[in-house]
Amino acid sequence: MGPVAFQGELGAYSELASREFFGYDIDVSPTQTFREVFEKVQSGNAEAGMIPIENSLAGSVHENYDLFLDHDLVIVGEIKLRIVHHLIVNSGVAIEDVRSVMSHPQALAQCKDFIDTLPSAHAVPVYDTAGAVRDLMSSGAKDAAAIGSAQAAANYAMPILESGIESNHQNFTRFLVVKPRSSAPDVPHRGPHAASEPDAAKAKVTVVFALHNEPGVLFKSLAVFALRDIDLLKIESRPLHGQPWEYLFYLDFSGDVADAKCRKALEHMGEITTLLRVLGSYEEGKVVDGSPTASHPASGEAPR
Amino acid sequence: MGPVAFQGELGAYSELASREFFGYDIDVSPTQTFREVFEKVQSGNAEAGMIPIENSLAGSVHENYDLFLDHDLVIVGEIKLRIVHHLIVNSGVAIEDVRSVMSHPQALAQCKDFIDTLPSAHAVPVYDTAGAVRDLMSSGAKDAAAIGSAQAAANYAMPILESGIESNHQNFTRFLVVKPRSSAPDVPHRGPHAASEPDAAKAKVTVVFALHNEPGVLFKSLAVFALRDIDLLKIESRPLHGQPWEYLFYLDFSGDVADAKCRKALEHMGEITTLLRVLGSYEEGKVVDGSPTASHPASGEAPR
Repeated sequence: MGPVAFQGELGAYSELASREFFGYDIDVSPTQTFREVFEKVQSGNAEAGMIPIENSLAGSVHENYDLFLDHDLVIVGEIKLRIVHHLIVNSGVAIEDVRSVMSHPQALAQCKDFIDTLPSAHAVPVYDTAGAVRDLMSSGAKDAAAIGSAQAAANYAMPILESGIESNHQNFTRFLVVKPRSSAPDVPHRGPHAASEPDAAKAKVTVVFALHNEPGVLFKSLAVFALRDIDLLKIESRPLHGQPWEYLFYLDFSGDVADAKCRKALEHMGEITTLLRVLGSYEEGKVVDGSPTASHPASGEAPR
Repeated sequence: MGPVAFQGELGAYSELASREFFGYDIDVSPTQTFREVFEKVQSGNAEAGMIPIENSLAGSVHENYDLFLDHDLVIVGEIKLRIVHHLIVNSGVAIEDVRSVMSHPQALAQCKDFIDTLPSAHAVPVYDTAGAVRDLMSSGAKDAAAIGSAQAAANYAMPILESGIESNHQNFTRFLVVKPRSSAPDVPHRGPHAASEPDAAKAKVTVVFALHNEPGVLFKSLAVFALRDIDLLKIESRPLHGQPWEYLFYLDFSGDVADAKCRKALEHMGEITTLLRVLGSYEEGKVVDGSPTASHPASGEAPR
C-alpha cells in the first residue's frame, strides 16, 4: 500500500498507531500539521491518514474535528493506543548518569512521579516526544534521557532504560484512520453483507450535523437514536462560525449504515438538521498497548 | 470591592471584560495561569475572577471547564465581549512606517487580511497580545506595531492607528464571573424573589454531571429538561479521568434555581446522575463591544 500520513516526527505515537493498525512494514509520511495530513490524503499523496481524535485524560483533539468539515475524507477504521512512556538513553548510559530528562511538557507531567525518583535529574520541556529522542541521539549526550514511545526508541535504535513510567496507566489515545471518500464508495451506502458479519455488533458510525435553531431540537436529535434503541457513544460540540452560540455536533453511535435501522435514523435526522454528513461507518477499534517490541525497521521516508 | 483576578498581562481582553462588567475603577489582579485565577478567588485573595469559557470561532476553553471541578467556585455572572483588534504603535509612528506587526498567532491570523494591505510589513508571533503592546512600548520602536485590545492601548497610553482590523467581526468571547461559593449562599437555593424580576426569562443555569454507564442515559438526562420545556443552551463533554470513554457533561439551560420547575428538574437529574453540581444560576450576559473608549487609569496592581 501507499504511505500512511501522520502528524509529528518519526517515532511519534501516531506512527506507532499507524504500524499497529496497518502492519510494521508500511511506509509512513510524517507531516508538521494535522491539516497537512488531511491534505495529503485528500490529494492522494498518502493512501491513508492516522488522526488522533481523543485522549482519555486530555479530551478531544478539537482541531481534527474541525478539519473533517473542510475536507471530504471518510473514516474507515479506529485504533485505541495505550500511551506507554519509556525512558530512552544513548548507548552505555545508566540510570544514575541521568541529570536531565527531555520530553513534551504533557509527557513530563504524566511521568512526574517517576522523574521525582531519580536522585539528581530535572525535567527539560521540548517541542515533542519523538523530537526529544532524535535530539538526544544527535547530541550523543551521556548525562541525559528522553521520554518517548517504543517506536521512537526503535526508529533511532536507542536503548530503553525503563518502560511504563507514566503515573496513570489508564491513558489511551483514540485514533481514526481516514481515506479519500472516493476510495471508500461504500459509505454511506455500504453493501448489505457487512451487517451480517460476526463483529457487526461492534460497528459504529460518526456523523456531523447542525440543527435548526429552535427549542428542544438537540433533544429531538438524540431521540432519533434513543427511540430506535441505538446507543450514543460520544457527543462533541464545536462552534458554528458566523453564528455565535450555535453549534455543530459530532456524534458517534453504535450501528452500521448497512442496517435498515441506521438508515432510517439517518433519514429521520435529515428532517431536523440543516447539515448532516456521515463521516464514517467502521469497526470499533481494538485496544493496543504500544509496548516495546522487537526493533522495527526505520521508515523509508525521511522526516520533513 | 476587592481586586478581580484574570489570566494574562495587563491589557488582556480579560481585563477589558472585567472592567466592562464591574466598572472601570476596579482593582485588577493579573495571573499567569487560569488555575491561579481559581486559586486566588477560592483563597479570598481576589473578590472575583473573570474566566473566558468560550469563543465563537475557536470554541470552548476546556481547561477552564476542568478547573471548575477542582474548585468550589460559583458562577455569578456572564459577559460577552466582541473581540475588536486594534493596530497600536508608539507615539509619532504612521502606518507607512510599520515594518513588523507583533501579536499572538491567533490575533495575527484573525487580522491577516488587514496585515496583507500593509505594503511592507510582516507578522511576528509573540506570546500574547497585551505582552506585544507592552514590549513595543518598552522598545520604543518606530518601525513596528502591535495588535491588541483598546484596554492595552489605554494601559500603556499608546496611540491606536486603526480599529476593528479583524476580518471576521462575529468574533465574541463569553466570560464567566466567579466567586467563592461561601460568598454566594443563594446558589443553588436562591430566594424566591429572583424569579419574579423582569429579566427572569433570561436567567440561565450551568450544571456539571456524570451519568450511570447504561444505554440511553444521555438521552434521558436531556429529557429531564425537554419534558419540562426548559431550553438547553449548550452541552460540553469532558473526559472522566480513570474511566476511558466515559464523560462529564457541562450543561447550560434557561432557568433560575429559584423556580420550582428548575428545582424539580434538578431533583430528577439527581435520580440518574452519579455526580451533579450546580455551578451557578445567573443572568445571561450582555454583549459589549470593547471598542476604544476614553483612556482608562492603569491598574493599581503591577503585573506578576
